[in-house]
Amino acid sequence: MIKQFRFGSPVPIYFGENCVKNNGGVFKGSGNKGFIITSKFIAGYKNLALAETEEALKSENIEYAVNDEVIENPTVENVAHITEAVRKFNPDFIVAVGGGSVIDAAKAVSCLLPHEGEDPYKVFFGEWVSYGSTKNECSIPVFSIPTTAGTGAEVTGNAVLTRADTDTKLTTAQFLVSEAAFLDARYIKESPYFLLDTGAMDALAHGMETYVNVKSSYLNRAVAEIGFKLFSEFKDKLLNKTMDGEDYERMMLASTVQGMAFMQAGTTLPHGMSYPLSHHKGVNHGLGCAIFLGEYIRSFKDRSIVQPIVEMCGFRTVEEFAEYVKTITNRDVNIEVSEKELSDWADEFASLDFRLARHPEPINRDEIYRIYRDSLADYIK
Amino acid sequence: MIKQFRFGSPVPIYFGENCVKNNGGVFKGSGNKGFIITSKFIAGYKNLALAETEEALKSENIEYAVNDEVIENPTVENVAHITEAVRKFNPDFIVAVGGGSVIDAAKAVSCLLPHEGEDPYKVFFGEWVSYGSTKNECSIPVFSIPTTAGTGAEVTGNAVLTRADTDTKLTTAQFLVSEAAFLDARYIKESPYFLLDTGAMDALAHGMETYVNVKSSYLNRAVAEIGFKLFSEFKDKLLNKTMDGEDYERMMLASTVQGMAFMQAGTTLPHGMSYPLSHHKGVNHGLGCAIFLGEYIRSFKDRSIVQPIVEMCGFRTVEEFAEYVKTITNRDVNIEVSEKELSDWADEFASLDFRLARHPEPINRDEIYRIYRDSLADYIK
Repeated sequence: MIKQFRFGSPVPIYFGENCVKNNGGVFKGSGNKGFIITSKFIAGYKNLALAETEEALKSENIEYAVNDEVIENPTVENVAHITEAVRKFNPDFIVAVGGGSVIDAAKAVSCLLPHEGEDPYKVFFGEWVSYGSTKNECSIPVFSIPTTAGTGAEVTGNAVLTRADTDTKLTTAQFLVSEAAFLDARYIKESPYFLLDTGAMDALAHGMETYVNVKSSYLNRAVAEIGFKLFSEFKDKLLNKTMDGEDYERMMLASTVQGMAFMQAGTTLPHGMSYPLSHHKGVNHGLGCAIFLGEYIRSFKDRSIVQPIVEMCGFRTVEEFAEYVKTITNRDVNIEVSEKELSDWADEFASLDFRLARHPEPINRDEIYRIYRDSLADYIK
Repeated sequence: MIKQFRFGSPVPIYFGENCVKNNGGVFKGSGNKGFIITSKFIAGYKNLALAETEEALKSENIEYAVNDEVIENPTVENVAHITEAVRKFNPDFIVAVGGGSVIDAAKAVSCLLPHEGEDPYKVFFGEWVSYGSTKNECSIPVFSIPTTAGTGAEVTGNAVLTRADTDTKLTTAQFLVSEAAFLDARYIKESPYFLLDTGAMDALAHGMETYVNVKSSYLNRAVAEIGFKLFSEFKDKLLNKTMDGEDYERMMLASTVQGMAFMQAGTTLPHGMSYPLSHHKGVNHGLGCAIFLGEYIRSFKDRSIVQPIVEMCGFRTVEEFAEYVKTITNRDVNIEVSEKELSDWADEFASLDFRLARHPEPINRDEIYRIYRDSLADYIK
């Protein structure tokens, strides 16, 4: 019997070169006044996306303003601050131009807009709206134009915000989805390999973790397979730093497709295990997850669960896959960890029953410690 | 370069045994008053779907009424008549329980509801809203519970109605999508093989035609491939009339998946060529399309376009595929056609430039005539 499931992927995507400029009418369909939310440019490559977005709005005679104050790992306060500016401008829609942080912040702004005078913490983390609900809590449409590939934020239904009060990253309680996503691979073409690596690894982790997740279904696995195939076609060029034309397109599409897949069932161990690395060591999210991918799939007692994934990704064996991921993460991650930290993290993670419950095999604290230790062996001081 | 595309599949699907009964809360999310639209029972098997829908609504204390007046190939007048009844009851949402005719009628009713006193022909066929727009013109949510597998109406964005004034079937101008679809394969289990054949062939035609369509994209082809693989797993049992448990689930899912794929790019020659068969000879839609599938793929000058499709469907060669389709259609279709009719149909179809333009190779009237003649050779009187 095919296991029961729910599958929903409500965000229409526009893919391809010039898709923003060619689809100005889509923005116009939502009104005559837009508000672009972005971040300070960390490199010139983001200018193109912003310039073409402005061009598209101008060509449709849409009045607009730009705010570039989104910070990395945006806090509730950062979102509340930008919401003030948006409220004053009173736009019909928002356009998010940037990476996952910008897209998540923009969705959160749209959600917060009608709650003037209320405590944003209560709005975002108060009543829980079940993930996967059909309720769209964006008060005005948010169009997402990613300038990185990896997070899948343009198609997922949540926003991750940092709580300043508890210093933790949390998913907002609402089901927040973009009105549409525009994927133009030219926007990631000038990215440094560090960013390409982290994005590709984030998307790969999304796909692999959701594939083995106990909540996964026939259909989200089938969608993840589309992403694995795309990955297999550019992985060698990523490794050799020889990415070219269509490789960027495959990477961009793979990221979105894995976003569509993982929003159905969520992630499993590597994502959860990576949080101390991001939090205490400042390791970039995608790389932090990828560090554990090799040892994670090695940990499967039933290798028939992971062997097909590895093959779809273009590797012959689990070992070959683990070696690939290690090469990528080693070239970008430079940290020091202690045995004590590993042990503490293993203790903490092993206590998170909801995380362990998503893994398809029984797993205990010792095995989690082994994954931490073997994954981070090169970094133990 | 990956060709530009738009991909949108807005309808969340609930799949699996008891998915209607298990998700009463989804209906409740849309209100306390529901209206079930269905058709007269042509066999007992539809009772289960209706009974379980009523059970789900009752369990959530939802007040409801039932109307079973949808006719096959519903006319504008039929839809307008049912709309009157729905207007009187004033429900929060509609539940469509039935085949493609019922689902299309229900979506059309929801669209027509707010237009009291207006000419329904003007409402449905007046201003054209481009297919694939994000605009949802259902005035109240329509939940779709298919009791046949094939049309994909539960996930597509249109409704096909028969115009009594011109005696033709036409797609409504609005973008009409279900709020959610519930796919329980038990609802097709008691279907006679005639219905299973026509549904499986309809879905197969959707997948194949959208795959080769010039408007197809990387992503809708990837989705169609999911459907081809599912088809390959039950095709022999359909042929041998030995369908069992999971086969029905695969068939149901394949139908929905091909609906998701073909709504992105539309169909091509076989669908268009089948209309005279349905219209003048009363041939069921899915079988009418399938009759042409074998000769259609034989017509490809570049066989590398169709060979992979045939293989994904579980056949070694185009000939093997054509043989399969012929066996299925031959056992269900019993008509007589004349040489003159074939010639007239070929003339008419060859004049439809928009149909021919979707086919990936140049094709002329003579080749269309050949497809008609060779496909219908067994029926020429």
